[in-house]
Amino acid sequence: MSELAVGIDIGGTNTVLGFVDKDGICVHKTTKKTTDYVNPEVFVEALTCTISDFFYTNKQHSIAGIGIGAPNGNYYKGTIEFAPNLKWKGVVPIVSLFQQKLKTPVILTNDANAAAIGEMIYGNARGMNNFILITLGTGVGSGIVVDGNLVYGHDGFAGEIGHAIVYPKGRLCGCGRKGCLEAYCSAQGITTTYMELLNEEGILDIPKTTISPLTIYEKAKSGESTAIRTYEKTGETLGLVLANSVAFTSPEAIFLFGGISNAGDFLLIPTKKNFEKNLLVIYRNKITILLSGIRENDAAVLGAASLIWKLKQ
Amino acid sequence: MSELAVGIDIGGTNTVLGFVDKDGICVHKTTKKTTDYVNPEVFVEALTCTISDFFYTNKQHSIAGIGIGAPNGNYYKGTIEFAPNLKWKGVVPIVSLFQQKLKTPVILTNDANAAAIGEMIYGNARGMNNFILITLGTGVGSGIVVDGNLVYGHDGFAGEIGHAIVYPKGRLCGCGRKGCLEAYCSAQGITTTYMELLNEEGILDIPKTTISPLTIYEKAKSGESTAIRTYEKTGETLGLVLANSVAFTSPEAIFLFGGISNAGDFLLIPTKKNFEKNLLVIYRNKITILLSGIRENDAAVLGAASLIWKLKQ
Repeated sequence: MSELAVGIDIGGTNTVLGFVDKDGICVHKTTKKTTDYVNPEVFVEALTCTISDFFYTNKQHSIAGIGIGAPNGNYYKGTIEFAPNLKWKGVVPIVSLFQQKLKTPVILTNDANAAAIGEMIYGNARGMNNFILITLGTGVGSGIVVDGNLVYGHDGFAGEIGHAIVYPKGRLCGCGRKGCLEAYCSAQGITTTYMELLNEEGILDIPKTTISPLTIYEKAKSGESTAIRTYEKTGETLGLVLANSVAFTSPEAIFLFGGISNAGDFLLIPTKKNFEKNLLVIYRNKITILLSGIRENDAAVLGAASLIWKLKQ
Repeated sequence: MSELAVGIDIGGTNTVLGFVDKDGICVHKTTKKTTDYVNPEVFVEALTCTISDFFYTNKQHSIAGIGIGAPNGNYYKGTIEFAPNLKWKGVVPIVSLFQQKLKTPVILTNDANAAAIGEMIYGNARGMNNFILITLGTGVGSGIVVDGNLVYGHDGFAGEIGHAIVYPKGRLCGCGRKGCLEAYCSAQGITTTYMELLNEEGILDIPKTTISPLTIYEKAKSGESTAIRTYEKTGETLGLVLANSVAFTSPEAIFLFGGISNAGDFLLIPTKKNFEKNLLVIYRNKITILLSGIRENDAAVLGAASLIWKLKQ
């Protein structure tokens, strides 16, 4: 009988469950529509049914625990707190809801922290004790690892580098403040940069709805200078914030994770250039910026499952 | 027989040695002129003589170890590396120089990290596991504590918040880059702000040499609006950087330490105001900004000595 950890990635639209072994092999994966569940109790009931069914019909496996990655997931309290992209409002005690149903360890953290643990257990950060992972997607999140452990901080909400203010009085961010990294390096941020560059060039008639990080990437691949410049400008901001990040925890490496980072060298080269340029001299030429080593499709679920394997280390 | 830790604070001008007990009482203190020693070997020889003499003539005490705080002190390597304010150039293996002379644990870190450990062992951070200490003096340094341990990072140089870039393209910093916190909140930074405000008011004939953080403080106490505005502007920058710092390690409290922080409420009130204003909503009204609880005169030596007591905990 082999143990499997259940990784649950709760997203605004879909929730993915994966049954993951110690080596990071996802032996089974299933999806639920998060929006189908108007309250979290019914949601947890549906998920625990799925989990029980799986282990009932796959008796060669036993459950090691449940790891959950969710927006605004609080590690200490086991609660999802005021997540803007979820229908359930206020504070949802997701861990205790699961524990009422199943007798197994349940751990929650936010999605970026889960990704960082996943990178450490299964990805390119294996063997590293000090690194930072930045998730570049709908939002910009981060997980910070110091001395082999994720930094949760006093209240469980450490690692919000996406909301470090990089340009005071800069672009309005979704959080209501101005100049956050997220306002420049999220999907929305990169799209806005592209539109701004088009406007500068006098091209005003492209509807914003036709532009997405994917179309910008396609245009960059086809050699369009505006798209390439969009990544250069994004790399300027990202490189600066990552250089500042080093002044906090002095990591061995920084990993880029999530949809926007799929642009590869278009983003990586200008980010590295501006990173080195903005580094304090004692840190120069020491720190690698790398792409995540976890396949995009499995990353969130592997990250969530790895919370359990990290616990058992 | 009671144990004493030797705390050594190596500064550009003076080096202070203190013999400190577990409760933070400095039973004896002595000073050497750092600049009298053209090479570090002779310097260490003089210090070890002083230490041996003390324990020879005070047989009721035994040595617990030597803690050293020094600019650019590397905790992992035990070396002082390229310290701009010291005469000794390059990499100085200060820990091994001491260990060749005395058989006792020797620990080195930079002065701001030593101050943070001192605050945790003897000061207002007792009982706190997650906090940040900022030193505001000739330079701006910091020590970051996560889960009860100082963050040294991969290379031993973590915690250089003074060199986080707050205003890209801002004021030139002593480190050669632009817009660092240090360029605004160090002794030089606050003096420059005061001069800039005077210039804005059309007062151009005050020689810079007559202005210092102390004279600015005296003027603020006497009600001079330019001096008071200097602290308000300094608090704007400091509040913003401290708010960004929270997004990294989510501390319980932030401590201000060093000469500039002696301005008390002149600096503290605008710093707190701008800190809260710039915080991400999940962190608001949770984090205290406090003045250090260690007496200025003893702080560096107590911090250095506390490296030894922390080791023995």
